[in-house]
Amino acid sequence: MVDVSAKPSTPRRAVAEAFVAVSAETLSLVIDGRAAKGDVLSAAELAGVMGGKRTSDLIPLCHPLALTDLLVTVTPDRVASGLRVRAEAATTGPTGVEMEALTAASVAALTIYDMVKGVERGVEIRSVRLVSKSGGQSGEWHRPADSAEAAQRPIRRPGERVAGRIRKSR
Amino acid sequence: MVDVSAKPSTPRRAVAEAFVAVSAETLSLVIDGRAAKGDVLSAAELAGVMGGKRTSDLIPLCHPLALTDLLVTVTPDRVASGLRVRAEAATTGPTGVEMEALTAASVAALTIYDMVKGVERGVEIRSVRLVSKSGGQSGEWHRPADSAEAAQRPIRRPGERVAGRIRKSR
Amino acid sequence: MVDVSAKPSTPRRAVAEAFVAVSAETLSLVIDGRAAKGDVLSAAELAGVMGGKRTSDLIPLCHPLALTDLLVTVTPDRVASGLRVRAEAATTGPTGVEMEALTAASVAALTIYDMVKGVERGVEIRSVRLVSKSGGQSGEWHRPADSAEAAQRPIRRPGERVAGRIRKSR
Amino acid sequence: MVDVSAKPSTPRRAVAEAFVAVSAETLSLVIDGRAAKGDVLSAAELAGVMGGKRTSDLIPLCHPLALTDLLVTVTPDRVASGLRVRAEAATTGPTGVEMEALTAASVAALTIYDMVKGVERGVEIRSVRLVSKSGGQSGEWHRPADSAEAAQRPIRRPGERVAGRIRKSR
Amino acid sequence: MVDVSAKPSTPRRAVAEAFVAVSAETLSLVIDGRAAKGDVLSAAELAGVMGGKRTSDLIPLCHPLALTDLLVTVTPDRVASGLRVRAEAATTGPTGVEMEALTAASVAALTIYDMVKGVERGVEIRSVRLVSKSGGQSGEWHRPADSAEAAQRPIRRPGERVAGRIRKSR
Amino acid sequence: MVDVSAKPSTPRRAVAEAFVAVSAETLSLVIDGRAAKGDVLSAAELAGVMGGKRTSDLIPLCHPLALTDLLVTVTPDRVASGLRVRAEAATTGPTGVEMEALTAASVAALTIYDMVKGVERGVEIRSVRLVSKSGGQSGEWHRPADSAEAAQRPIRRPGERVAGRIRKSR
Repeated sequence: MVDVSAKPSTPRRAVAEAFVAVSAETLSLVIDGRAAKGDVLSAAELAGVMGGKRTSDLIPLCHPLALTDLLVTVTPDRVASGLRVRAEAATTGPTGVEMEALTAASVAALTIYDMVKGVERGVEIRSVRLVSKSGGQSGEWHRPADSAEAAQRPIRRPGERVAGRIRKSR
Repeated sequence: MVDVSAKPSTPRRAVAEAFVAVSAETLSLVIDGRAAKGDVLSAAELAGVMGGKRTSDLIPLCHPLALTDLLVTVTPDRVASGLRVRAEAATTGPTGVEMEALTAASVAALTIYDMVKGVERGVEIRSVRLVSKSGGQSGEWHRPADSAEAAQRPIRRPGERVAGRIRKSR
Repeated sequence: MVDVSAKPSTPRRAVAEAFVAVSAETLSLVIDGRAAKGDVLSAAELAGVMGGKRTSDLIPLCHPLALTDLLVTVTPDRVASGLRVRAEAATTGPTGVEMEALTAASVAALTIYDMVKGVERGVEIRSVRLVSKSGGQSGEWHRPADSAEAAQRPIRRPGERVAGRIRKSR
Repeated sequence: MVDVSAKPSTPRRAVAEAFVAVSAETLSLVIDGRAAKGDVLSAAELAGVMGGKRTSDLIPLCHPLALTDLLVTVTPDRVASGLRVRAEAATTGPTGVEMEALTAASVAALTIYDMVKGVERGVEIRSVRLVSKSGGQSGEWHRPADSAEAAQRPIRRPGERVAGRIRKSR
Repeated sequence: MVDVSAKPSTPRRAVAEAFVAVSAETLSLVIDGRAAKGDVLSAAELAGVMGGKRTSDLIPLCHPLALTDLLVTVTPDRVASGLRVRAEAATTGPTGVEMEALTAASVAALTIYDMVKGVERGVEIRSVRLVSKSGGQSGEWHRPADSAEAAQRPIRRPGERVAGRIRKSR
Repeated sequence: MVDVSAKPSTPRRAVAEAFVAVSAETLSLVIDGRAAKGDVLSAAELAGVMGGKRTSDLIPLCHPLALTDLLVTVTPDRVASGLRVRAEAATTGPTGVEMEALTAASVAALTIYDMVKGVERGVEIRSVRLVSKSGGQSGEWHRPADSAEAAQRPIRRPGERVAGRIRKSR
């Protein structure tokens, strides 16, 4: 573990993303809430938050820290035929929260896999990666390349209407 | 959780993989054991095993089960400029171990990210996916497509010499 | 821990329930999915399942066991002004799953509290108790008294329509 | 998770309670320390403390936080025929500790259930609820109604003599 | 992790011990139940059981398994000026429970340290070691040397009277 | 749990050690990296760090805290025929980190046991104890007696060459 005893406590924030590629049929099941194991979107979002809180249990050299924010959203993307996971973490402390955001995104993606593996075993988790971070000695960082494009892709807010979703209210 | 109370207990096995894309410089650091946080390969392999054992804690609808085998290997690949993670899980029980293999591969990949993020922040985890599974009602499954090719790629056994590695014995 | 080494492995099942008393206004928020922290019903059901899997971590003398089933449902009840939690657990083993069902029901109830405490702090969790159990040396057990009546109260199945729910699809 | 990144760090405290209704015979077993699984009072108090520390692992949207105090007491009450659980939690931070107090009380109550279920299966956990909280934006809160009366009921301090207890020293 | 997929499931049992050396004054505090943090003996015994259940979470290559028995006892020893911890674990499975017994003994010993460190900081945990094991391919094993003598030392059963203990009933 | 709500937040540091006595043959296996289960030194060091982070989960009355440093080293000692474990923990807070250092040392020692138990079952963990602590009300503390001598024994830094180690690079 890196010794951060002498580092000042500053506000930190990090955003990570993952993409889960599924077939058009599976995506429709997810959007319509017809997956056999239940509502994929809310299960994945909740599991992502809970997984992000376990980061220091899972990653050997990660510092335990008091997260002040952790938001995970899963957005179906018919064009790309998959589900986009976005995780945003924050704390005030001597060390960053990149791993918390990445772990939350990974656990959300794994949960999607688990919820649909009964209908499509070949689902693939692609592009688990950091989007941006701020705070700390190294300051701001933004993924270069295709991030401008990514920034334009709409992200569903929790509870927001999924375009074209036909869902029986429960 | 799917009710597996009436399912027979049979031997199950699953293999998953992940690929962590890093720069040639970072890969050299990892292979030579010069990463600031320590030996990346052994840390990732160990974290993968420990993470795989936590699967039912992380994935909401996964059954807790008694793993009888869990092997994680991380193999540097200079041609592809990255690290290939392979996780193999087994149990004897009423439910499969795909999620255990996938979770182990994911946690190993996240640990690689954590160990090298100080030198390369843009590292990307690609292609977390199932390679094969056996046992249970649905029987054998092998990823089609490029799996034949994948089968030919050498996989480092734990403790095996990494080609071209110049490492100071400790 | 009671020594169950010599006990035969048999199918076990247990059902527990909890009741969370809330005001009519809070109940409407929950039913309509308008609670600030998100969908209370699915969050509580998922947290209940995950909590039930942690039973042997929480209850000192509980045996760790491989659950084969764990189903948690939360049903709004306008007449009683509250939410009824029902948890059903199963395993095949030398020891029962009463504590798993009770822990799952408790964690689901606590999660409901957490999701609505911003609007109603005085929410009360009432009647966490075993409804029935089967399997093992002591055989079948059913809560006497008001259980006949309880059996007639409808229980929402996961994903089932909540009577009178007006919910925006997401 | 509610974003508390911008909230000031202030001292917080919360008290919760639970009541575990048992028969007079079971209560005598507990008071006399004759329950088959060991000393119910100290097991429940310890499990409550340990469970309260796991709150953010169990409740999906709870922030992980550094508790500065967590005291759980279990007091036998012959008049009410049951055991009164009281949990008091404190921290200094941007978010409250109501859920920590409630989770600690619940885990203590579940542990009581587990320790006596061999002699009385129908035990019921009643009235898991917040008694008071202080600190934070919303300030002080005290449960109205019967709390005045509750405040007058004696609460056993850890290690304090249980009235009428005849216990063999060990 | 050693692959035990093909190993037969057999009854396993293991006994481990630890010795915690304390001063005569500290030992008296513990025996009399006057330690500031509460009853050391019951806290250590309970923590040992709970710690033993976490073995596969803590020890990287340990298999998760369903313990059927786990008994931890802490016996004050005025002659040796310390506390003797004894942990006995059992399961029926393809792998042994030595690590579960050793981990339970270690956590009980660490808990003793924690409970008395306010009055004696130099407490030392000595001789954490396996006493015996049975079951599995390697069959019976008993620690040679001083084990005959050890077998003659009395071991307190949970709830058993501690010789010379003057304890206020609670 | 001791109430530390009113204690000031100060920098804290603690060092603990453990000694794992093994035969000369086992020690050679460990040093040469020929143990069947893999590299003992790095597995034990990593497990020690991860175990130290779980301290408040394991020790009932330990406060959860945000460690800022945790370093575990395992040094083979041919003269003493064993492995010396050293764990150093730090935080800034109202409570000390002695238990974190001791728990990390214990888990590292248990992991060594697990990795070599296939070749030597009688391995013994000796002398788990605090070496020094600083910070907080009680200030500095150093183990008296043989600590001067201990300070002169060389401690391997992570990645440092082990004297006389003949290890195949991997």
